[in-house]
Amino acid sequence: MPILTQHADVAVLDLGAGENRFHLGWIAETEAALDKVATAEGPRALVTVADGKFFSNGLDLEWASAHPDRFSDYLASAERLLARVLTLPLVTTAVVQGHAFAAGAMFTLAHDFRIMRADRGFWCLPEADLGLPFSPGMSALIQARLTPQTAHAAMTTGRRYGGEDALAAGIVDRVAGEADLRETALALAASQAGRASAALATIKETLYAPVLRALRHEGG
Amino acid sequence: MPILTQHADVAVLDLGAGENRFHLGWIAETEAALDKVATAEGPRALVTVADGKFFSNGLDLEWASAHPDRFSDYLASAERLLARVLTLPLVTTAVVQGHAFAAGAMFTLAHDFRIMRADRGFWCLPEADLGLPFSPGMSALIQARLTPQTAHAAMTTGRRYGGEDALAAGIVDRVAGEADLRETALALAASQAGRASAALATIKETLYAPVLRALRHEGG
Amino acid sequence: MPILTQHADVAVLDLGAGENRFHLGWIAETEAALDKVATAEGPRALVTVADGKFFSNGLDLEWASAHPDRFSDYLASAERLLARVLTLPLVTTAVVQGHAFAAGAMFTLAHDFRIMRADRGFWCLPEADLGLPFSPGMSALIQARLTPQTAHAAMTTGRRYGGEDALAAGIVDRVAGEADLRETALALAASQAGRASAALATIKETLYAPVLRALRHEGG
Repeated sequence: MPILTQHADVAVLDLGAGENRFHLGWIAETEAALDKVATAEGPRALVTVADGKFFSNGLDLEWASAHPDRFSDYLASAERLLARVLTLPLVTTAVVQGHAFAAGAMFTLAHDFRIMRADRGFWCLPEADLGLPFSPGMSALIQARLTPQTAHAAMTTGRRYGGEDALAAGIVDRVAGEADLRETALALAASQAGRASAALATIKETLYAPVLRALRHEGG
Repeated sequence: MPILTQHADVAVLDLGAGENRFHLGWIAETEAALDKVATAEGPRALVTVADGKFFSNGLDLEWASAHPDRFSDYLASAERLLARVLTLPLVTTAVVQGHAFAAGAMFTLAHDFRIMRADRGFWCLPEADLGLPFSPGMSALIQARLTPQTAHAAMTTGRRYGGEDALAAGIVDRVAGEADLRETALALAASQAGRASAALATIKETLYAPVLRALRHEGG
Repeated sequence: MPILTQHADVAVLDLGAGENRFHLGWIAETEAALDKVATAEGPRALVTVADGKFFSNGLDLEWASAHPDRFSDYLASAERLLARVLTLPLVTTAVVQGHAFAAGAMFTLAHDFRIMRADRGFWCLPEADLGLPFSPGMSALIQARLTPQTAHAAMTTGRRYGGEDALAAGIVDRVAGEADLRETALALAASQAGRASAALATIKETLYAPVLRALRHEGG
């Protein structure tokens, strides 16, 4: 389960050392942690990290295929989580130290910034190869954060982007070696902590209004 | 008229050696060829090629100006063709060996990928110079495939992009010398043939939902 | 107050040597000048320039905070001005010789092209730091002209882009030294003067239809 710790002005959300899939309990815990950061006061920023081979492998497809009647609710709760991260009233950075696949890759896109390990791990949307379409909200999120050329290639070919490729394609904002990865993210986050404000949340709500309507399954 | 041939898993649509304008008969033949590829089964991909000086010069404006009463139907059939290419359930690559102008340039954008000859031919939207506006669907297609900066410059100034310029602007995905052009495209297509699936068509329908509504003249 | 002069086919709008904030009178004068250029006939283009430290610092927040009851009308008139520039029937270029902040930065984005001084001045959206949200129309304008990565960073962090940074981020199309700045813009504009036409205005109206609806506060 994700664990939240505080480092001066920076809240660090640690997803853990497993595959970090979006189980229902995992989603609830993550939302609770984000609520805590969102409703805190004063300067603050968020850095999301994980350990080991995976950042996150996304939805728990095994559980989902065993519970077809609950799939649409499950998907909606994952989409709600993406919308929550996308509109936090503070600057958020995902540290992609390992594989970020499918909804795990989308989760990184819901952050303001992404720093990826230069020499290890892939950022990948394997949906086309799995025969899974993207929900309208997920498709809208990806398209709202990437250039048309990158979004199209990533979504239709399941291309696996290593750190340098992801940087060149504009998927991540920076790469760093393993030793510097967290330090870089923490320093960036600390420098942005003063920007936490309700106005920042409003700016993001306006920026991504159609994406959020789709992720939240709102009309219009 | 376009001719369809099969090379292992790759269907090759050859537009021909003329100006390859979108005559009504040409549109019907092309659609019939695409239907054949779309409804085939198993691994498959599409490569669209042409010969000589032109890839395609787009709409047949001479015919159109002689048939003003049929122009809106004609335009709608060209837009339907763009929508058809954009949503094929397989990976599509346009090989731009010569001039791709106006609707001919848009036709390349309806493919998943574009490979352009490095040293010959231009990709160009000359509408502003011809005094022709873009239809909402065509405008939406161009904007959905290019960065804002590239779409704006291409659409408002009629800039002619040679291969290297088009690569730098993100209009094409690769360039190659004349000798390697088709080989490169066929190899890329063959490597993607396993991705043909109904799910891929759904992914593209979701990616380009507003573009498709406009190209198909659907409400909303 | 802005002054309009004619240099062969190129109309030059000089914003002045102050902070060039969007006072109500300034907006009215600027609109009148643009109307003159828009309704003229024959080949023509527009270059917008300013002198000294600032290109424009945007809205007059001091006046606005003293007139809260008039703020929404004031904002709407600034948005109408952005829509007017965005749809002129001729090619427009902003010469960013100094600071372009907030609505001043958006004013540059409403032009077709931007040339920035390489070694002086910043392009910046400081709204997040000022605790000011963007109006839906202003947000839509920024997002329609920049890549997702650039728009997000500019709008959420108030990053100050110098000339070279702005060029790399695709915010401006060219940079030049102080000595060459206006010459470069005038030459570019003169080369595009033949493109002035009603069709060009229609192309821009179609390109930016949703942005314009939001800037003009139209339904839909």
